[in-house]
Amino acid sequence: MNRGILIVLSGFSGAGKGTLMKELMKTYDNYALSISMTTRNPRPGEVDGREYFFSTRETFEEKIAQNGLIEYAEYCGNYYGTPRDYVEEQLAKGKDVILEIEIQGMRKVKQMFPEMLPLFVTPPSAAELERRLRGRGTETEEVIKSRLMRAAGEADGVEDYEYIVINDDLQTCVSQIHGIVQAAKSATARNTQLIHDIRKEIGDLSKGE
Amino acid sequence: MNRGILIVLSGFSGAGKGTLMKELMKTYDNYALSISMTTRNPRPGEVDGREYFFSTRETFEEKIAQNGLIEYAEYCGNYYGTPRDYVEEQLAKGKDVILEIEIQGMRKVKQMFPEMLPLFVTPPSAAELERRLRGRGTETEEVIKSRLMRAAGEADGVEDYEYIVINDDLQTCVSQIHGIVQAAKSATARNTQLIHDIRKEIGDLSKGE
Repeated sequence: MNRGILIVLSGFSGAGKGTLMKELMKTYDNYALSISMTTRNPRPGEVDGREYFFSTRETFEEKIAQNGLIEYAEYCGNYYGTPRDYVEEQLAKGKDVILEIEIQGMRKVKQMFPEMLPLFVTPPSAAELERRLRGRGTETEEVIKSRLMRAAGEADGVEDYEYIVINDDLQTCVSQIHGIVQAAKSATARNTQLIHDIRKEIGDLSKGE
Repeated sequence: MNRGILIVLSGFSGAGKGTLMKELMKTYDNYALSISMTTRNPRPGEVDGREYFFSTRETFEEKIAQNGLIEYAEYCGNYYGTPRDYVEEQLAKGKDVILEIEIQGMRKVKQMFPEMLPLFVTPPSAAELERRLRGRGTETEEVIKSRLMRAAGEADGVEDYEYIVINDDLQTCVSQIHGIVQAAKSATARNTQLIHDIRKEIGDLSKGE
């Protein structure tokens, strides 16, 4: 069985990443979602090992020390990170593992998994992004403004992603992402072993071995 | 209409590039084959503007001087090259243009069309490549050996291609190439204008314009 690939999905808030991932999981059977580890308290309804792996600060910091996290960050006094074990297990099973993180995390992941596939999702336009942010109807003007400022920051890093996908129609976007993942498996950068093998075999043949 | 992309298809001789291109053209309607210009004489059955654009050395050298060729090379005293006009016309019509050339030509094309998509096709193994070369049954041992040596040279440049495709089953390979072409259209490197526009719109919104 071929090893799966690690997909990092980022995008503006309001780009619909959560829905996309759910739909991908529902439509195809080759995906697994990475589950983050956090030191924040579970919210009502959250289940350990489903939404998050919940942990103490002590355990989390041990994980860091053991290099057991692919990436981690601290927000508002809580740690969030991606346990390496789970990802490695799923990849070994041939699953394509989706990791939803932001650009700083993506850059860290790239150091450890240079073959990972970074994907950026965007609404069809900035106006639509604004509409989606406002659409929730629960945020103050200030919050919306600060999100837009953050989006501007995120937009600065888009070139660090390999692909950019416009989430206009959900089903179209899901099958587009799936197509990108399939194609990405043929990238020369992800087939160094194959290329090495072919090169060696041809070398042997042309020497008449 | 979106502009098409330029696909450069290379691969070991015996990898089945010709059949792949024919099948791609037959199966999907978004492709156009680039037609080369040459100074060699037409062979029986070859039609000007179908197999090649046939030209005199004088006309060919004028084309070179006018920068009217994307790439060209001289083999056995004859020029072969890719006229730029035809490619540009087809791209403007939204066609994805396929160009079958070797690695040196691919590198030249890349200078002029940095967004082009370079694809390398290989038989499933070197043993299979050898079998395909021998399979024609018309070549001397020496010719086969020299082809294998050339293949070894070609294999050295595979990393310069964006994707590597194994031509085992024809239909599988054709749909794989088609998927790669579709996915390639979402590459950030091929969407600099889109990224620029999004960035500008978000910048304007976050400034409250």
